[in-house]
Amino acid sequence: MKTTIHAAILALMISGAAMAAEDPGISVSRPGDTPQTQGSAQLFSGEVLVGQLFRGTAPATISGGVVSFNASARTAWHTHPLGQTLYVISGNGRVQQWGKPVQEMKTGDIVLIPPGVKHWHGASATSAMSHLAFAEQLDGKVVTWMELVSDAQYLSEPSPK
Amino acid sequence: MKTTIHAAILALMISGAAMAAEDPGISVSRPGDTPQTQGSAQLFSGEVLVGQLFRGTAPATISGGVVSFNASARTAWHTHPLGQTLYVISGNGRVQQWGKPVQEMKTGDIVLIPPGVKHWHGASATSAMSHLAFAEQLDGKVVTWMELVSDAQYLSEPSPK
Repeated sequence: MKTTIHAAILALMISGAAMAAEDPGISVSRPGDTPQTQGSAQLFSGEVLVGQLFRGTAPATISGGVVSFNASARTAWHTHPLGQTLYVISGNGRVQQWGKPVQEMKTGDIVLIPPGVKHWHGASATSAMSHLAFAEQLDGKVVTWMELVSDAQYLSEPSPK
Repeated sequence: MKTTIHAAILALMISGAAMAAEDPGISVSRPGDTPQTQGSAQLFSGEVLVGQLFRGTAPATISGGVVSFNASARTAWHTHPLGQTLYVISGNGRVQQWGKPVQEMKTGDIVLIPPGVKHWHGASATSAMSHLAFAEQLDGKVVTWMELVSDAQYLSEPSPK
């Protein structure tokens, strides 16, 4: 599916998908249940696919989805008013907080991004990476998007761990 | 690690771990960074290990962790005031809402449990299962635990999907 969908990204990142408007009871969504959509070039660098969007039932405000990055692909710089959590499903990736060294992430890692912290995340330069991403809303807002990540920023030396 | 830790389960399920008391910036936690702890026999049936506990930075209320069930192991019946989300990392599992058929879940599935819904989740009878689990708090509370799941309840016929 090569459709570039701003709307789907917004559904994920801004207000969540409308899947749970009525209470369906417990729902189980499989990777193939809904098509993946391509990440907008305004919000991502490189090839990025978004799928398995989910949203909690109000008054919960959690929403998220699975985001898959080709090697070197990454988000733009952005912040979340209540922070964000990533779970690395497969591959190797990078995450960076503004003004700090890049940190590497690997399959099975859990990454905590605190509220209001300007950051980006994506694949490593040599490996694709897929992660589950989820965040709570504050006053109906879940993300503020900023500028794209330059190649120099993306390729900067990672911190040892 | 065979230590039975009520405290660790409570940290995960009730108020979250204290890992993020001060703002550490972006943190990356690896599967081996902290030992797994064994699930309490009051809250789980069978062999269950809990690890990679995380908690968002206030005012976020998200907390969670990775829970690994041996074949046939499962949680007790319980509810979450704002619901819970599961991401199946590996294996095959089962989830059931009170009064409804068991649903099967597989690697890569996302399971949404609405607020206040009495339910349990665990491995299938023949396969281990590991999932990421996370939930928001309401008034400082994230779970209400109830009775253990009987073998008859656990082994009831699943719904087709």
